[in-house]
Amino acid sequence: MSGLDTGLRGLKRVAIVGTGLLGGSLGLALRQRGFAGHILGVGRRQATLDRARQHGCIDETTTDPGQAARDSDLIVLATPLGSFGRILGEIAPHAAPGLVLTDVGSTKALVCADARRLLPPALARRFIGAHPMAGKELHGPEHASPDLFVNAPCVITAEPDADAQALTLVESLWSAVGMRLIRMSPQMHDQCVARISHLPHALAVLLVELAMSQGGLEVASTGFRDTTRVASGDPEVWSDIFTTNRGACLEVIDAFTARLGQFRQLLDQQDTPALMDLLRRAKTGRDAWIAKANHCDTGKR
Amino acid sequence: MSGLDTGLRGLKRVAIVGTGLLGGSLGLALRQRGFAGHILGVGRRQATLDRARQHGCIDETTTDPGQAARDSDLIVLATPLGSFGRILGEIAPHAAPGLVLTDVGSTKALVCADARRLLPPALARRFIGAHPMAGKELHGPEHASPDLFVNAPCVITAEPDADAQALTLVESLWSAVGMRLIRMSPQMHDQCVARISHLPHALAVLLVELAMSQGGLEVASTGFRDTTRVASGDPEVWSDIFTTNRGACLEVIDAFTARLGQFRQLLDQQDTPALMDLLRRAKTGRDAWIAKANHCDTGKR
Repeated sequence: MSGLDTGLRGLKRVAIVGTGLLGGSLGLALRQRGFAGHILGVGRRQATLDRARQHGCIDETTTDPGQAARDSDLIVLATPLGSFGRILGEIAPHAAPGLVLTDVGSTKALVCADARRLLPPALARRFIGAHPMAGKELHGPEHASPDLFVNAPCVITAEPDADAQALTLVESLWSAVGMRLIRMSPQMHDQCVARISHLPHALAVLLVELAMSQGGLEVASTGFRDTTRVASGDPEVWSDIFTTNRGACLEVIDAFTARLGQFRQLLDQQDTPALMDLLRRAKTGRDAWIAKANHCDTGKR
Repeated sequence: MSGLDTGLRGLKRVAIVGTGLLGGSLGLALRQRGFAGHILGVGRRQATLDRARQHGCIDETTTDPGQAARDSDLIVLATPLGSFGRILGEIAPHAAPGLVLTDVGSTKALVCADARRLLPPALARRFIGAHPMAGKELHGPEHASPDLFVNAPCVITAEPDADAQALTLVESLWSAVGMRLIRMSPQMHDQCVARISHLPHALAVLLVELAMSQGGLEVASTGFRDTTRVASGDPEVWSDIFTTNRGACLEVIDAFTARLGQFRQLLDQQDTPALMDLLRRAKTGRDAWIAKANHCDTGKR
């Protein structure tokens, strides 16, 4: 139990709502790091919960978020974003005293606003938004891994009036499973992920669509495989992400379209020095980021 | 020697001009598959040639393309595209009777036109353009691998009047190192690779540049790592690629910009059904391509 701090060790029951790749991996990671309390899986489909239990991700199951709210010390929302409002509404009337909430949602401004709107004020202050930036294009508890979160960044979007104990508990949760914590406002988070995750996802989807409609897949190789990997992600999850981060995504698409136009102009005008300068800056910047983040060595896909 | 057909087994000397990642890997692959003739490395810097020889990629070296032309049965151009014209000019006056030429250039229309322009007609018909679609973002003979080409596509852009024996020899070369051959006109090749390689490269570079200038790298994770991997490629190589495939790249950028505009509109108008449809089509298309090409299992980066 050396990996868990006092706050986590004291918990009797952690509930994970949504036991897919992320929720399942969190259960496995907690267990592997010595969490001795109950891990309650919450979901709408008993079959999915049973699969997650078979894979050792959880040890109890329920299809009733209200029951999880009554019996748990900490609830982690790990369902697609579109279901958060409904689940928060089901949790609110049943919350045990001192219940702490966190989530894995890929966008944060709307989620944090929903928590304030749907939860009683004291409970809303114990909702600590989180975005563990880990994942892969596969889903379901079958692909869950206790090491999914190791070395990856986790953004914590605590509001200024957040409950201090809840914040400490949630930060120790994500830290315990190996993540690097970064605090940010929900709005700043949403702008950052629009740039480094949502826009890249849209581009990957459009690249696949272009090659499918105009040809070229027969000669595509490892470069195309990697640049488009995220396009194999869950359409439902990604539809929710784009929808709940629409404003930031539109801004980032506009900024990117302008840059693509500048690139087109460089090429059209045969401005080779400026082209070389751009290619060099991007290589230098990415190489430095890779060296710092050490993403190369984790081997995670 | 079971991996090599009669044509390749009969060669006394293969010259590889440019002994970096691709040239070096070709040397290693030929040797590993039982090629018993000489492998002559040709380059401008003796130090690079010496490193390639130390890594077992080649067994002889010269800095004179003319010597390679006199003494070899087959020459493979594996330098950056910008140097092809100069090298073809140095080869032309010294070519041994029956010399066959191929290359690894990432664009083909300009290269094939250069071969026609700079080589005597009979030798030009023995220049068989090739684009082995293998690589990684690392370069130099230190990173060469005998398996770099295995299972990857190799486009052969033979002109209608190509010498039949030369075509057979070049196809057996790339086939011997494990590649899947695809014949295509140089123009068709350039349009395909603009879609599945050059545009994705430009997008990756611009994604890195956007995140560097506006922020977000601190929360970027494995998705960003993979979508931008190619941006760590050699700026000199990529400047040559964009420059020599300018026309096709401009067309593909325009087609993509239009699609990005449509995506923006979907998002702005909150057309969730159309968004879901696009995300599903891309996932289905990519998953089918991955399953067919089996790129997932090769583990190549």
